[in-house]
This record gives sequence, C-alpha cells and structure tokens, in this order.
Amino acid sequence: MFDIIAKKRDGGALSVEEISFFVKGYTNGEIPDYQAAALLMAIYLNGMNDEEISVLTKEMAQSGDTADMSGIDGLTVDKHSTGGVGDKTTLIVVPIVAALGGKVAKMSGRGLGHTGGTVDKLESIPGFRTELSPEEFFENVNTIGASMIGQSGNLAPADKKLYALRDVTATVSCIPLIASSIMSKKLASGSDCIVLDVKAGSGAFMKTVEDAERLAVRMVNIGKAAGRKVSAVITNMDIPLGYAVGNSLEVCEAVKILKGEQKGDLYEVSVELAANMLMLTTDKPLEECRSEVKEVIGNGKAFEKLKEIVTAQGGDTSVLDDTELFGKAKYFFEIKAWRSGYISKLDSEKIGISSVILGAGREKKGDPIDHSAGIVLRKKPGDSVNEDDVLAVLFTCDESRIFEAEKVFRSAVEISEEKPGEETLIYKVIV
Amino acid sequence: MFDIIAKKRDGGALSVEEISFFVKGYTNGEIPDYQAAALLMAIYLNGMNDEEISVLTKEMAQSGDTADMSGIDGLTVDKHSTGGVGDKTTLIVVPIVAALGGKVAKMSGRGLGHTGGTVDKLESIPGFRTELSPEEFFENVNTIGASMIGQSGNLAPADKKLYALRDVTATVSCIPLIASSIMSKKLASGSDCIVLDVKAGSGAFMKTVEDAERLAVRMVNIGKAAGRKVSAVITNMDIPLGYAVGNSLEVCEAVKILKGEQKGDLYEVSVELAANMLMLTTDKPLEECRSEVKEVIGNGKAFEKLKEIVTAQGGDTSVLDDTELFGKAKYFFEIKAWRSGYISKLDSEKIGISSVILGAGREKKGDPIDHSAGIVLRKKPGDSVNEDDVLAVLFTCDESRIFEAEKVFRSAVEISEEKPGEETLIYKVIV
Repeated sequence: MFDIIAKKRDGGALSVEEISFFVKGYTNGEIPDYQAAALLMAIYLNGMNDEEISVLTKEMAQSGDTADMSGIDGLTVDKHSTGGVGDKTTLIVVPIVAALGGKVAKMSGRGLGHTGGTVDKLESIPGFRTELSPEEFFENVNTIGASMIGQSGNLAPADKKLYALRDVTATVSCIPLIASSIMSKKLASGSDCIVLDVKAGSGAFMKTVEDAERLAVRMVNIGKAAGRKVSAVITNMDIPLGYAVGNSLEVCEAVKILKGEQKGDLYEVSVELAANMLMLTTDKPLEECRSEVKEVIGNGKAFEKLKEIVTAQGGDTSVLDDTELFGKAKYFFEIKAWRSGYISKLDSEKIGISSVILGAGREKKGDPIDHSAGIVLRKKPGDSVNEDDVLAVLFTCDESRIFEAEKVFRSAVEISEEKPGEETLIYKVIV
Repeated sequence: MFDIIAKKRDGGALSVEEISFFVKGYTNGEIPDYQAAALLMAIYLNGMNDEEISVLTKEMAQSGDTADMSGIDGLTVDKHSTGGVGDKTTLIVVPIVAALGGKVAKMSGRGLGHTGGTVDKLESIPGFRTELSPEEFFENVNTIGASMIGQSGNLAPADKKLYALRDVTATVSCIPLIASSIMSKKLASGSDCIVLDVKAGSGAFMKTVEDAERLAVRMVNIGKAAGRKVSAVITNMDIPLGYAVGNSLEVCEAVKILKGEQKGDLYEVSVELAANMLMLTTDKPLEECRSEVKEVIGNGKAFEKLKEIVTAQGGDTSVLDDTELFGKAKYFFEIKAWRSGYISKLDSEKIGISSVILGAGREKKGDPIDHSAGIVLRKKPGDSVNEDDVLAVLFTCDESRIFEAEKVFRSAVEISEEKPGEETLIYKVIV
C-alpha cells in the first residue's frame, strides 16, 4: 500500500492490480483509514486517467452485491441525477419511458442535506410501498414496464466506506472520485442503459458547466468501458428545477407535467431525459424520441402509466387525480417582494437548505421527514415582480421554523432593475 | 480540521491558529490519523511557506518537554547531522569545540536502518554511561565544556507521532516536513547555537545538492525565526565519510583524527563543522575558527579533551590511548578487487545496509547491536586498485552473515578503467 500511495503521490498511473489491491484491502479492513486517506488526497491532487477510473469503478461495483436483472425481458434503462433541488424528473420520466415500451427498474435513494430523494417523494403518496421483493419488482417491470423502489442489498460497499472517508478528509469534490462513486453504484444496480443527468450550477456538486462536462465525459467513458449504453445530459442547476421543493409538493408538480398542464424548465429537462432513455433502448434518433415523449404526455398515456405504477405498489391514486387531497402542511407563509424589478437570482442550494429547515429534508441520515413541508415558488429568474407580489409560499408543520427558513430563502433571492439574460437550460448531450 | 485540510488541498497558507489547532489536536488524539494523513499528503504536494514551517516547528517543539539549559554558563552549541553512513563527526567535533572553550551539551540518538547513532558508538567504549542526571550533565558541561548523552524526556512528542504516520503514508520525503521535524527536536533540546550538517547524495535523505540546499535554507530560517544562531554545512554523502563503518571501528577512526594521524574527507568535514560551531559561539570569522580547530588537533588538546569527557562519564580511556585494546569481532573477511582500475563508486546506502547485516546496526528499534561489527574500507573513490587488492574488511561475530553482507557490499562498488573526476566534499555553508 505504501508503494501505491508513493506512486500516485509522484503522479504515476496505478495498475489494475494496484487498484484492485487497494479496493479489496480497504473494504475488508486490512488497509487502514490513514493510508486510504493519504491515497485519496494524492488522487485528488494528481488525478487519475480514464483507465484508472474505469478499474476503480469496476472494483467498487464488484465489492458487494450486484443486482441481477436477468428476470426482466429486454433492455433495462436507468436514469441518474447528480443531485439537485426540486429535481422530481424521476417521477416524470419513469412513467413516460414505460408508456413508450421501455423497461425501467429504478432504484432510488432518500434525501440528504439540501437535495431531496425520490424514495421520500414516493412515500408521500399514501400507501406507496418502496420496499418490494425482487420477484415483485421484476414482475412489475415486466408487466407494467416500470417499478420504483429504494436501494436495497449491499451495493458497492467499497464506495460507501470510501465516501464516508472522503467526507471527513476534504476529498469529495474530485471528478475521478465522484465519477467512480456514482458509476460503481450504477454498474452494481445492473441496468443495460443509463442516462446521466449531470447538474451544473450553484445547487450542484459541479459549479461550472466545464466541470460538469468533464465529469459527464468521465462517467460516459466508464459506462461504455463496462459494456453499458450511456448518455449524459448536462443541465442547469443554478436555479431549482420547476416550482416545487418538498416531497408531496413535488409529486403534485410531476402530476401537472404528466397531465400536460405545465411547461417550462422542468418539462423541457424531463422531455430531454426521457428522450435519451428511449434513444438508448430503441436506437431511434433523439429528435424522434423527443416527439414520442411529448406525444405520451399530450395524450395522457404517461399519466395513466404513473397511476398503474402507483397502484401496483399499493399507493392511493386518488391523490394523483385530485392533488388537493394530499395531506396539507399545518402552516403556510407567503414571502413578498421587497421591491419591484426582475428576479435575477434564485440560489438553489440556499432554497434547498430553506426547505430542509421547514422539515422537507434531513440534516443527517435517519432524521424524520415532513412530507407536506417545502416551498412553492411563484416567481423564477427573468420574471418581473411588483413590490409585495408573492415570491414563494413556505409550508411547514412546525411554526417555529418559519423565521429561520424565511431568512435563508430571502438570502437566495436577488431582485434587479434590469431584466437578466436568459439562462441556458440544457447545455449539452454527451453520448 | 476539515477546513484546514481543504485549505491546504487548495494551495492556501495555514494560519498560526490552524497549525496550532492541528498539532495540539493530533498530539492529544482528538484529530484522527486519517485526517492528519490527508493533511500531510496535501502538505507534501502543495508545500508550506517559511512562516507556516516555523509555526509548525515551534508547535511541535512545544508539544512536550523542553530542555532547560539555564544550568549552563554561557552559550551552548549543538551539532546535528541529517544522517549518514560512517558519520562519526560528533565524536570528533565535540571535544574540539570544548577544547576551544565552547559549551557543548550534546544529546544524541541511536542508530536505525542504514545509518548509525552516536549513542551506540559511545557505548562501545567500556564503562561509558550515556544516561546522566540533568545535574551531572550540566556539571560536566560547565567544568569540562562538553557532555554527550542519549536523548531523554518526552521531546517533541507531536513530531514523534507525526513521523510514525508519515512513515506509513509515503509523506516522509518532503522538505517542509523534514525541516520542521528535525528543527522541532533541536529547538526542544534547547541549545543557543546549532550547526546543521546537511548530507546530500545516495546515502542521505536528500539525493541532490539542490534539495539539500533547499532543506538547509528552510532549517536555518526556522532556527533564526526562533531566536537561535544557526548555520548549515552541506556535505557529500555519495560515499561514506572516512574509512570505518560500525561502532567501535568508528571510535578508533575518530581517535585517529583527533591524534592528527588521519587527514582526508572525514578530517575536512570535521574541521568545517567544528569551525562553524566555534563561529556561532564566538562570532569570530570562519577562517580564524578553522585555524584554531586545526591547532587543537595538532597540539593534542582535542584528544585530551575527549579523554576528559570519557573519564567524566565512567568510560575506560585506555582503549583510546591504544585502540588495539577494543573488543575485536570474532570473524573478519577481506573483499578483494575483481579487476584492476579505479574505484568509481561506493554507494554509501548499500554499505550502511551491509554493515547492519554484519550486526553493526538495527533493522528495527530495540534490536541488539554488535559493537565490534562493521566495515573498514581500504579504498575510496578515485583510488587505483590492482586485481586482488583488498577493497575492504568486513567484521562480525556471526559468520553466517558474511555471505549476504559481502553480496550487498559488492553491489555498492564500481571499478572503472578511467580515473573518476574528483568529488566535491563540502558544497556550501549557509549562515
């Protein structure tokens, strides 16, 4: 291990054997944390080439259970987002792709820190079960075309252990390590096709489009090297996606999109992601896939598919037909514009933090969650506002949290005299 | 601690408070090894400026006991070598400086790995006690001018703990960390004046003169920033210093130098170091100091002073008057030239390893030592040899070790047809 650290310290490329020795030894406890920490910092500062990253990813993917998708007929397709605020695209693209004949065996996580998690959002639907047996999961995918569950099993334990160490040694924000961490879980969870939604902006890991593109290229290369079909869509996360942040609030917004009642940024990104998923599974041109996606939104088939999925997992679809039936937060609070002008900034990280304060998220693993809490934006960047217009509504069941959440929310918003330039929403697709 | 790691990872300079927080926290166990390891690798790769190094050194120096030299009248002077093979200069310069009125309160270490230690060499003199009470130590320095003992007390425990971690995380060979490690012990051991013998070459930490100079400048700056008088002499350690490697063998050679019976590299380096020590304590010009040093060698006063020191610490001086009385190794073995030509290389690291195999040193702390074992060189680089000339004699009490020691020794020697260019012995003095 000493020689491996010294080699990376001096800028060398690690061999397959060296990386395998490290991942196996660290996972089984033979290599101590302090040696792993020294290596991680050397990787952070000296980087890794594509081959090293592929090997690291494969070793981490194979360090624990790997999902067996052989029970599903045809190519399975997965979507992964690098994490954003108000990102409910999974709830939208999964039924769309299933309505178009795709097979989506989706395993998702819970929310942590300022970003939410699909499992929490799904659990805001009364009765919805996110824990299914493998048999039930595969059966649903085969018959309905999709199932959405929580991550189960011991997927990529090497990544889990390394991530915990990175978290306390200031070695998280490193493209080779982020790429291999994400892709190790994707490879272990077994889908044939993977669409990556790589976020760029203040609310994302990657603050610039250039860094997001570097990360995306690395991940696509890893996936291809492992024999998967992969594409990456680089999307804007300077501002939250859509209008709702918070679990049941986001389900309501996803329903609106699927009913064709809402256009705008969330609609555009969802169409692009779903079209990419379809492209990978069908090999049709992307433009054709976009049209098909828009069609199943327009004709209601995607919304019907969502209800089928929810029913199959024990959920009550009446809240989807009439979202007014969702459990409501006890308190709501309107934030009004303090001047007239244009919204020029809406910092998504701060808005994410504000929603966590309201009860919509977790500061640490295992914290309870308030499914009704969150924020509904009324204005987004570029919109004109008059003094006292409502900018957003905060929802919570704990009145005492409003003051702090409001303070954080206000610090996320800027109102300027000039109308800001239009922001790009989808920067690039990397195939 | 996370923020400190991140700052250094991004190339920032750590503040006094941050360095102090790290050293105190790591020493008392509040900061875990893995965070310290990540910081050490970040320091290794991103460096530290002079101020950071001074602060780190001071914090480590103050992490444990600090020697109180107030019991000694006048300025005390210390000498430190970065470690070499056949380096017996301490045994030579201490009596020289004392004979010229200096006050040398010398604390030394034991040998480890391929380099020897002064304490082991002294203990090859029958009866010599290297453990004295502080009172006896100060009394000897005050009356005789010098005393040589083993390091006692809990000097710079932060350095000890950090060094152990560096040793297993490939972060040893880093100039800021080496400089602060050495100087923290020197500052804690309390002398007013410090002469550093910084070795450059194959047998030393610093393989090139440029690196040795960088290290020397850093250490001189640290010492001055702490209010000490410091000079550094950069000397050649491509080849062993003098002819003897091994404990009693080296004492015999030191005696020869002090009796004026041997000139050459060891004599030159010893004169330079002793002259620097004198310069720092008296402020006389270096050239004048060199003359005075040569004078006390020539007139026998330095040798008499060695005997005084040895007597005061219980040693038997008869072995100094007649070095034939030293305990002899049971076996000796001559290594002969395999061809005629010129000695063009004599790798000091390998020769050090060969002598450890013969029993003269330790592979790990606490291993027993054979004071009579070692190597006496008969030829040094530049010397002409005929086939079958004796190159060196190996001494040991364990016959089974000769085969391996000989193999390593032979791999250290090169004989060429051309006479090699003359090597520089003393590269530079930095004040």
